Amino acid sequence: MRKFGKILFGAAALSALPALAWGQDAPTLESLAANDAFVFNTLLFLIGGFLVMWMAAGFAMLEAGFVRTKNVSMQCLKNITLYSVAGLMFWVVGYQLMYGGGTFFGKFAMMSYAAEDVGTGYSSYSDWFFQMVFCATTASIVSGTVAERIKFWPFVIFTVLLTGFIYPIVGSWEWGGGYLDSKWGFSDFAGSTLVHSTGGWAALIGAIVIGARKGKYVDGNVHPIPGSSMPLATLGVFILWLGWFGFNGASQLAMGTISDADSIAKIFVNTNMAAAAGVIAAVIYCQLRYGKIDLTLALNGALAGLVAITAEPLTPSVPFALLIGAIGSILACLTVPLLDKLKIDDVVGAIPVHLVAGIFGTLIVPLTNSEATFIGQLVGVVMVGVFVSLVSAIIWFALKATIGVRVSEEDEYTGLDQAEIGVPSYPEFVNG
Amino acid sequence: MRKFGKILFGAAALSALPALAWGQDAPTLESLAANDAFVFNTLLFLIGGFLVMWMAAGFAMLEAGFVRTKNVSMQCLKNITLYSVAGLMFWVVGYQLMYGGGTFFGKFAMMSYAAEDVGTGYSSYSDWFFQMVFCATTASIVSGTVAERIKFWPFVIFTVLLTGFIYPIVGSWEWGGGYLDSKWGFSDFAGSTLVHSTGGWAALIGAIVIGARKGKYVDGNVHPIPGSSMPLATLGVFILWLGWFGFNGASQLAMGTISDADSIAKIFVNTNMAAAAGVIAAVIYCQLRYGKIDLTLALNGALAGLVAITAEPLTPSVPFALLIGAIGSILACLTVPLLDKLKIDDVVGAIPVHLVAGIFGTLIVPLTNSEATFIGQLVGVVMVGVFVSLVSAIIWFALKATIGVRVSEEDEYTGLDQAEIGVPSYPEFVNG
Amino acid sequence: MRKFGKILFGAAALSALPALAWGQDAPTLESLAANDAFVFNTLLFLIGGFLVMWMAAGFAMLEAGFVRTKNVSMQCLKNITLYSVAGLMFWVVGYQLMYGGGTFFGKFAMMSYAAEDVGTGYSSYSDWFFQMVFCATTASIVSGTVAERIKFWPFVIFTVLLTGFIYPIVGSWEWGGGYLDSKWGFSDFAGSTLVHSTGGWAALIGAIVIGARKGKYVDGNVHPIPGSSMPLATLGVFILWLGWFGFNGASQLAMGTISDADSIAKIFVNTNMAAAAGVIAAVIYCQLRYGKIDLTLALNGALAGLVAITAEPLTPSVPFALLIGAIGSILACLTVPLLDKLKIDDVVGAIPVHLVAGIFGTLIVPLTNSEATFIGQLVGVVMVGVFVSLVSAIIWFALKATIGVRVSEEDEYTGLDQAEIGVPSYPEFVNG
Repeated sequence: MRKFGKILFGAAALSALPALAWGQDAPTLESLAANDAFVFNTLLFLIGGFLVMWMAAGFAMLEAGFVRTKNVSMQCLKNITLYSVAGLMFWVVGYQLMYGGGTFFGKFAMMSYAAEDVGTGYSSYSDWFFQMVFCATTASIVSGTVAERIKFWPFVIFTVLLTGFIYPIVGSWEWGGGYLDSKWGFSDFAGSTLVHSTGGWAALIGAIVIGARKGKYVDGNVHPIPGSSMPLATLGVFILWLGWFGFNGASQLAMGTISDADSIAKIFVNTNMAAAAGVIAAVIYCQLRYGKIDLTLALNGALAGLVAITAEPLTPSVPFALLIGAIGSILACLTVPLLDKLKIDDVVGAIPVHLVAGIFGTLIVPLTNSEATFIGQLVGVVMVGVFVSLVSAIIWFALKATIGVRVSEEDEYTGLDQAEIGVPSYPEFVNG
Repeated sequence: MRKFGKILFGAAALSALPALAWGQDAPTLESLAANDAFVFNTLLFLIGGFLVMWMAAGFAMLEAGFVRTKNVSMQCLKNITLYSVAGLMFWVVGYQLMYGGGTFFGKFAMMSYAAEDVGTGYSSYSDWFFQMVFCATTASIVSGTVAERIKFWPFVIFTVLLTGFIYPIVGSWEWGGGYLDSKWGFSDFAGSTLVHSTGGWAALIGAIVIGARKGKYVDGNVHPIPGSSMPLATLGVFILWLGWFGFNGASQLAMGTISDADSIAKIFVNTNMAAAAGVIAAVIYCQLRYGKIDLTLALNGALAGLVAITAEPLTPSVPFALLIGAIGSILACLTVPLLDKLKIDDVVGAIPVHLVAGIFGTLIVPLTNSEATFIGQLVGVVMVGVFVSLVSAIIWFALKATIGVRVSEEDEYTGLDQAEIGVPSYPEFVNG
Repeated sequence: MRKFGKILFGAAALSALPALAWGQDAPTLESLAANDAFVFNTLLFLIGGFLVMWMAAGFAMLEAGFVRTKNVSMQCLKNITLYSVAGLMFWVVGYQLMYGGGTFFGKFAMMSYAAEDVGTGYSSYSDWFFQMVFCATTASIVSGTVAERIKFWPFVIFTVLLTGFIYPIVGSWEWGGGYLDSKWGFSDFAGSTLVHSTGGWAALIGAIVIGARKGKYVDGNVHPIPGSSMPLATLGVFILWLGWFGFNGASQLAMGTISDADSIAKIFVNTNMAAAAGVIAAVIYCQLRYGKIDLTLALNGALAGLVAITAEPLTPSVPFALLIGAIGSILACLTVPLLDKLKIDDVVGAIPVHLVAGIFGTLIVPLTNSEATFIGQLVGVVMVGVFVSLVSAIIWFALKATIGVRVSEEDEYTGLDQAEIGVPSYPEFVNG
């Protein structure tokens, strides 16, 4: 509450600080150090958290730019809904599944200010917030791939299950201290596999089950369907790039010491350089391969670089980070025509970016981090891939068999905005 | 100034720290604690401040997306101008009126680095910056409602009076330690009433005095006027959602202790959950009520949830925060057709979102915060409503009677961009 | 790596902190103070850095809004590419040139966590990141001026040389502790001259060498070419305004003490007020001079105010900051028609904003900062102007004489998107 007057400080205020922080009437060196570290760590989660929350806007703009005008309102609605659903589901069930350590409501009790927080060195609320936005990111990845033909409610149901169960279960294996972590020493710093590949597998299976957009693959030919607004897509990528500093940087999980602060700074640099290398690699690749520079590949090159560095943004040197970003980007560029050959219609290129670059980034962690092993990384990639693909397939097929996942051919032609939203995205612009 | 070389640290640097911080030649445990708390608190105001400043861009995009193309340049101009005017007026007169405690220039003297700052525990400049962006938010609320027919200069004059006088006077009653705070124990953590309802009342009276846009209400029928760009409106809502973490979180006003940091984290979670519940409630409501999901209601549902939780984002449990957001959103959804019945033309839905959800959020504070009373909350809501409505009415009528507030019918038809700006918003797009 | 369980704190954790921080087994008052200051300073660089990184998105949106639809994809591509190239070049060579103090690889060695970092009081990585985004800003300034007719690859080559050599050399004279700093006491707090004028001179010479867009100046008449999207340009300015808090605020370079935190807060206020005054001055100027309010001048007025205050955002009082912003803005408004008279075609108005306001802001530093002299400031402005202009001219002419800088007349007519990108910016919108 904002009041006129002073926030007291000095001796009076110090003695008023919570006993939890100080442990006695007067501050000691130890209690001050504990207090400051707690504030730093919590602040890291909050700043990192709001930056990753902002990535939800980045996905929304990227996807709004890559779909056609007749589906833009729907894509906006899906993105704000999925972020909301992720928050609700991760609170109701996801967080406990992921971090409960077997006790379903184990972490639930921590959702209030408690003495034990002082022992952990950060606020439980800030931790929950930071983990939740990662869960939402996973769902954002799916919405782009299956855009322009999936019905709204089946998409929401899939999001409920992905954010409440699939992602948290996968996460529990590693970040929750489960099998992959304890048995295989699997290493995934900020989620190339746990977040990005999980989203990527779910998107891939969705794209296969739902099928391509009408008119994309006709008589063995690929007909590119240009997106409605390149500046919005570009804005989306800049937002994602900005948010990724929080995604990777705050995954250091602590900021109270010189060592942690320095690690976060190094992660910022490596994250930025992988994305930069991704752009440059894609631009050069396009020039050499096509003679023109496809903006959408340059944009996705940045994202592929970011995804690739996410599995290990701390241990690589800067030149190595550049290499990781560049290779991730090239792999994504090579995957785009491959998907077209397989007639898998990925509207925004999420599979090349999040799945392929995510697998690559995860597999090469042992090159710079001696605590990881190639076999451990491979096991993690495969286990996540098999589990997410299987469960996603079951859900997608179940949805298809019951309420249906795809709009009618007529609705697809007129666009989802008219069919399910009733609010055209740009009523004064389109020529019709 | 950036120089090559080192920022000295260690003993030499410590002894060079301002005597104000250390109080003596060598640091003591108390002076170090005071120093760190001062930096944390100031940092909270600066981060919170830049996040709320960013909300000005959110309102600009929301409104640019909700008006027609012929008025988009004007809406952009109004938004950047009102943010600028708010800064100027809150510096010239507003801050002193609000926090001067009767001495008009009382706080003015604090606008320089002074010994007493150490006693307050934060930089006066950071406090001013944080309070100023709240003042600007109040003005942003008005511009959306009265869009597409108000002339530029009358709008600027109203903004001058709102940000220099109306908002600061209302604020002084509570956050300035005045009547509502001392007499009634009125409680409004981050401004559901002081900011959002104040803007909402000013907007409501403006909409009544100025009248509806031509063509909106004809022969007893309501003709919806679709906005020009749904992705820009969506971007605006994501920006506002992001900024709200600063709006509510930094209203804790201190971050130097474990207790304050934990409170801020809880506020982040509750703020996010109220918005998420607002979206989900609006989506379900639309589906059940209309059979289609109106994107504009989903977007305004997020904002209504945010406004509703703003009066008390700290004391509610997470389930309660979800409930507050959901009810705020439904109330906003119900208000939209009601305004149309009354032929009050609110272009962006600011009255349902900021006024109605703001009143609701304020009135229910006592359910979770035992320091507030229902009668105290009611008195605050009514006093602010009566004062802002009366003064706004006087100003709007005075403007109408003198320079006029509304553009000519011809200018309204051709659009404000052509009439007053001369710069079309999308010269290559519109079909004409 | 995120693990289940606790981040240990208390005695065990304290003793586990790096010996570098504590210098001995148990923390002392001095080691705790050094630890906290290191974290604060590093955090300042990281927050400031991500805010300035975000300015790259601001320039992208500003320019995407100010060019015609047929060149929007290209402008997006140039902006994401230049930010990437700046990161790469500043790492490969720029940072060492700027801060190496003669030893080319002097600073290179610091790019890893090292004992000496503790002595400097911040992470070297965070410093590099913060300096890099300034380098990128310089390149962003050029891309707007020469838009809509420069070929992609010559622009990239110029960016390589600007970010790898021109900017770092200029920077080394002052921030690297060179001639301008040691000999002339030149003072440029956050880069009105070093960043903004450097970009401005490079842009001016580029505009002259490349020539105006076809159709801009015909038979002695000026034909304004309206930009494609005013809301995107407005969004760009809001992004830049937000980023500027990091640009100027974090240029304080330290946040560990009460004094530094207070200075940063004052810089935030002055930065905001100069921009606000820039908007208000431009709006009033337009009304009086033209009878209509040109939105593009209001937007550029904000930026000109920001550039003008950048040379010294700390020492001016708030009224003085308002004055600096207002005059900077008016000077920019006056320069626009002057450039047209000289047939210098600056697509986005970068020369009035970054060069003219930058020079003005630099020259008036001595009015508030007694450590600067008018002669010293003049020498700095002239030296930077002569050097950047000369080297830029050599590069632009060399490019013109070899691979050519300008697209063919036909490509300019059809637009760069079709000629070099192959991805139309708004495929469903444009009428023509």
